[in-house]
Amino acid sequence: MKQDRMAPFLKNGKGMLLAYDQGLEHGPSKDFDDRNIDPGFIMEAAAKGGFNGVVFQKGVAERFYDGKVPLIVKVNGKTNLPGGEPISRQVCSVEHAVSLGAKGVGYTIYLGSAHEAEMLAEFGRIQEEAHRRGVAAIAWIYPRGASIQNDVSKEMVAYAARTGLELGADAVKIKYTGDSVSFSWAVKAAAGARVFMSGGPKTQTDEAFLEQVKGVMEAGATGLAVGRNVWQHKEPLRMAESLRRVIFEGRSVQEALAP
Amino acid sequence: MKQDRMAPFLKNGKGMLLAYDQGLEHGPSKDFDDRNIDPGFIMEAAAKGGFNGVVFQKGVAERFYDGKVPLIVKVNGKTNLPGGEPISRQVCSVEHAVSLGAKGVGYTIYLGSAHEAEMLAEFGRIQEEAHRRGVAAIAWIYPRGASIQNDVSKEMVAYAARTGLELGADAVKIKYTGDSVSFSWAVKAAAGARVFMSGGPKTQTDEAFLEQVKGVMEAGATGLAVGRNVWQHKEPLRMAESLRRVIFEGRSVQEALAP
Amino acid sequence: MKQDRMAPFLKNGKGMLLAYDQGLEHGPSKDFDDRNIDPGFIMEAAAKGGFNGVVFQKGVAERFYDGKVPLIVKVNGKTNLPGGEPISRQVCSVEHAVSLGAKGVGYTIYLGSAHEAEMLAEFGRIQEEAHRRGVAAIAWIYPRGASIQNDVSKEMVAYAARTGLELGADAVKIKYTGDSVSFSWAVKAAAGARVFMSGGPKTQTDEAFLEQVKGVMEAGATGLAVGRNVWQHKEPLRMAESLRRVIFEGRSVQEALAP
Amino acid sequence: MKQDRMAPFLKNGKGMLLAYDQGLEHGPSKDFDDRNIDPGFIMEAAAKGGFNGVVFQKGVAERFYDGKVPLIVKVNGKTNLPGGEPISRQVCSVEHAVSLGAKGVGYTIYLGSAHEAEMLAEFGRIQEEAHRRGVAAIAWIYPRGASIQNDVSKEMVAYAARTGLELGADAVKIKYTGDSVSFSWAVKAAAGARVFMSGGPKTQTDEAFLEQVKGVMEAGATGLAVGRNVWQHKEPLRMAESLRRVIFEGRSVQEALAP
Amino acid sequence: MKQDRMAPFLKNGKGMLLAYDQGLEHGPSKDFDDRNIDPGFIMEAAAKGGFNGVVFQKGVAERFYDGKVPLIVKVNGKTNLPGGEPISRQVCSVEHAVSLGAKGVGYTIYLGSAHEAEMLAEFGRIQEEAHRRGVAAIAWIYPRGASIQNDVSKEMVAYAARTGLELGADAVKIKYTGDSVSFSWAVKAAAGARVFMSGGPKTQTDEAFLEQVKGVMEAGATGLAVGRNVWQHKEPLRMAESLRRVIFEGRSVQEALAP
Repeated sequence: MKQDRMAPFLKNGKGMLLAYDQGLEHGPSKDFDDRNIDPGFIMEAAAKGGFNGVVFQKGVAERFYDGKVPLIVKVNGKTNLPGGEPISRQVCSVEHAVSLGAKGVGYTIYLGSAHEAEMLAEFGRIQEEAHRRGVAAIAWIYPRGASIQNDVSKEMVAYAARTGLELGADAVKIKYTGDSVSFSWAVKAAAGARVFMSGGPKTQTDEAFLEQVKGVMEAGATGLAVGRNVWQHKEPLRMAESLRRVIFEGRSVQEALAP
Repeated sequence: MKQDRMAPFLKNGKGMLLAYDQGLEHGPSKDFDDRNIDPGFIMEAAAKGGFNGVVFQKGVAERFYDGKVPLIVKVNGKTNLPGGEPISRQVCSVEHAVSLGAKGVGYTIYLGSAHEAEMLAEFGRIQEEAHRRGVAAIAWIYPRGASIQNDVSKEMVAYAARTGLELGADAVKIKYTGDSVSFSWAVKAAAGARVFMSGGPKTQTDEAFLEQVKGVMEAGATGLAVGRNVWQHKEPLRMAESLRRVIFEGRSVQEALAP
Repeated sequence: MKQDRMAPFLKNGKGMLLAYDQGLEHGPSKDFDDRNIDPGFIMEAAAKGGFNGVVFQKGVAERFYDGKVPLIVKVNGKTNLPGGEPISRQVCSVEHAVSLGAKGVGYTIYLGSAHEAEMLAEFGRIQEEAHRRGVAAIAWIYPRGASIQNDVSKEMVAYAARTGLELGADAVKIKYTGDSVSFSWAVKAAAGARVFMSGGPKTQTDEAFLEQVKGVMEAGATGLAVGRNVWQHKEPLRMAESLRRVIFEGRSVQEALAP
Repeated sequence: MKQDRMAPFLKNGKGMLLAYDQGLEHGPSKDFDDRNIDPGFIMEAAAKGGFNGVVFQKGVAERFYDGKVPLIVKVNGKTNLPGGEPISRQVCSVEHAVSLGAKGVGYTIYLGSAHEAEMLAEFGRIQEEAHRRGVAAIAWIYPRGASIQNDVSKEMVAYAARTGLELGADAVKIKYTGDSVSFSWAVKAAAGARVFMSGGPKTQTDEAFLEQVKGVMEAGATGLAVGRNVWQHKEPLRMAESLRRVIFEGRSVQEALAP
Repeated sequence: MKQDRMAPFLKNGKGMLLAYDQGLEHGPSKDFDDRNIDPGFIMEAAAKGGFNGVVFQKGVAERFYDGKVPLIVKVNGKTNLPGGEPISRQVCSVEHAVSLGAKGVGYTIYLGSAHEAEMLAEFGRIQEEAHRRGVAAIAWIYPRGASIQNDVSKEMVAYAARTGLELGADAVKIKYTGDSVSFSWAVKAAAGARVFMSGGPKTQTDEAFLEQVKGVMEAGATGLAVGRNVWQHKEPLRMAESLRRVIFEGRSVQEALAP
């Protein structure tokens, strides 16, 4: 069997990752408050919350990563300021990410963008270098740009998942389609590449988010890369506990919410 | 005589390749069902169906290639999502493809695209590296973009074939013109570069597809790279058997369809 | 604790830098007079004025840097002549900057520009090379281009600061928001990356400028990179003295202005 | 005196080259028939016709070059399909061309194209590498693109010739101006770089073509790179014989046409 | 004191260079006649005319440079044919220029062009390589493109000069502002980088040109890079003699014109 480079991020084949690159992707004022603007708060939440991995840009990893949770370094990034077709290019070498302790590197591909070719090519190189260095290559794949009508349709999400497989990603981070049945098509399309749901913006209720996660797990996914729904939560560790119950113990949403 | 790098993919000078990069090129929802979305199903069909080669992107090869059939790794690729002039760039190094066991690498050139120059140049480099490493360089050549009126005219298909010859491709994968006589002009234009018909979308009847293949072989081509007409078929192995009869035994379409 | 590559530019954790790349960025006729067009005048003012660092392009450093004040070499630059979306590319290698005695390299990123991706990627490479060579990587980050409405809003300045943190800058040079409370949000966003206010055009009164600097220091910033407000000043050393009182001694603006 | 890298292609300082890259540049259906679509036919005509050199793309050289005539490998190329400003990029390395036996490499520059800068730069690199490897760098220089009104005016053809000289080409291949006097200005502009007329499309009569060649030689040029006027001719060897009489023996057109 | 890489081109701190890259930049028909189209004529004029340097593209240097006058090789270049924003890219490596005997390399930057960033970056690399190899890096700096209203205003010419200083040019070649006082501002802006006036088109009278040169020298410049006003002159050596009197002996224009 193929070596599982995702093993550092899994427990019994499931995984719960804490994502924290929103400071670059969305800006601090959109997503952060006085508490979660501090990467130290996030690092601590990742450890105490039982996360299997934490996702940082290199600058945050350099200053705040403490080794208590396996590290994924995002190696490309952009702000949300420029208009036009999205393009996110490599800002961190794989060598540097590994030197920071990363067991995986993350790269975002905007599928359907007029710049898609450049990102596919760049990920192609990064995937090979990551594997030469023995770490996982994880693809964040989001259909985006003028050519995309609906980025969470069953077809589009499966296309994202499949692209990750075809390019040799160890895992893909994709959006939820909205229901477990359609999401299972994406899991099938990934054909063994690990599927993580991208958490997205904070939902109005905890229940709403946990229902998504439940659907994701029922669809056969590996887990979740969550950010705002944890660190914007009043009680991040309580939300983390609920998520663990759904992801690792297969509990119902109601059981997960129980005190 | 020139070393034939295509030899691994030939039997008595003919070849039948199973192509399976549609997950990236078209998306899983357009071409796949619950059965053929699984690369393992394809790998098995390739072996049992007596194919002389199988075409995968690197990610699929990494997870599913089992060595039972010679491997061609597609080293560029794109989705069908972006609008504008087509461009497909290298996503897999030749070195990596060879490390996966490939005896050939495939590269798509969109002739006539506003980005043609970039693809010609990239294929030029890949061809030389493939030959240095002792594997075949196979060009998928499709006229496409605003400048192309009819991509299956006799003239256009011959232009595609000739481009492969001029750039040193060991083989070209081109579309069928619709009749054997006009396709033979493309075979002449290839002037020794092996010509494989690109199978295209599933035809309404088996007979229709086999007629195409018969015409291709009568035109002097080497064979066929087929995907959907096999793995979308209810009985892929039966279709494979029919194809073998036409390609290797020179049977008529009626003989090929006989039980 | 993380090694502080900014240490050469700090005294008790505060720093006052003299910036002098306006000859390239704005042209000599816009900012210079017969006195300050001479880089030798600036080098002398930096030393006598007690500055903790001086910022030159490589050409000025090659001819005028005398080692009396720590050196930052700007490694990209542009004129203000071309229209269109701003782009500033690397014009000096990190290796060369270090050979000139630089303890830090500066790089400008125009956040929100249509060319943002190219500058983020280039800074990403420069940051790693700077750190390999043991010098600081300092990001000048200015939101600019058609997508930017207000480049000194609290949100935009904090976004600039955060981008520096995420990309691993040792320090960021950003514009002032206009008040200390909103600027403190940028300092928080930087999360440990040193924050220097960009001095900007000469203010009408010394008091006005010192009030800005006071606000910056109250917000928790590290200091100031000042150019025109010092070397366009009738008495640069007197202004430098006033700045030192605010930055290092925490004096009030009135105390700083006292003879 | 400067080493003459063109010596392999000259006899008594004159040269007659057989060009055969039209399969890529124009497509096989525009220029070829059942006979001349076969590169073997061309290779044989080159040898029997007493040509001093033959021009192939690498793919044709790999399969058909037999060493009987000195080889020039065209190292860039394009199809005539894309619209827009012309660009032709390197598709064959100089190293590879030399490994095929080439004593010269050819590169096309579209002077005046919006992409001119890229081709000038690429030829600049190729020229140096060719010379390092001891082979000639030959520039095909054609003014083309929206900025060009008349590509065969005295001024434009001389500009093409001069560009070759300035960039260090050993020889230039340029179009005929239409008369010997004006063409001699181009020869002067080349200032020692060897001038070859580009043969162009087949003329209506042999006489018409030979008159051109006569004018070219009278202008002091080195010779001719001819394609269609030879291999589209009913009797290629007879045309070759006529050309030799004009080029090497200085005969009149009537003498050249005599049986 | 800083090593003066311009020393080979100076006599008592002044210099007179003969420029001859107009064959590429303007085309032979615009500037040349039967005499000066011959680079041998120029090489001889440079030696006999007492010039301190001669400026050639590599191709001309390869064929005609005889070592009698120090050599500057222009390492970028373009034709005047393409419309749009000007871009001139590297066509000769510094290594190659040095192998031809060059003691300096020249590079043109079109300040204000939409492609300015590419030229600044390329010059930045060339400057460092030239200095590593011990030769001067000389910047031809011309404001040009849609953003430029007046390329010879005091402000624009000083901006050009300053850009050369900032990027580490040993010398700049800039246009004359029209009077000595305003040109002296450019000399100040250059702050030690040697300033050479770009000779420009042939003036109607010798007196007119010598007045310009007189103004340039009074402004404190190092000298002149002249082309057309010498080699389009009926008596190039006589004009050279006049120029020497102004540049090296400080004579008046009338004295310079005396027989």
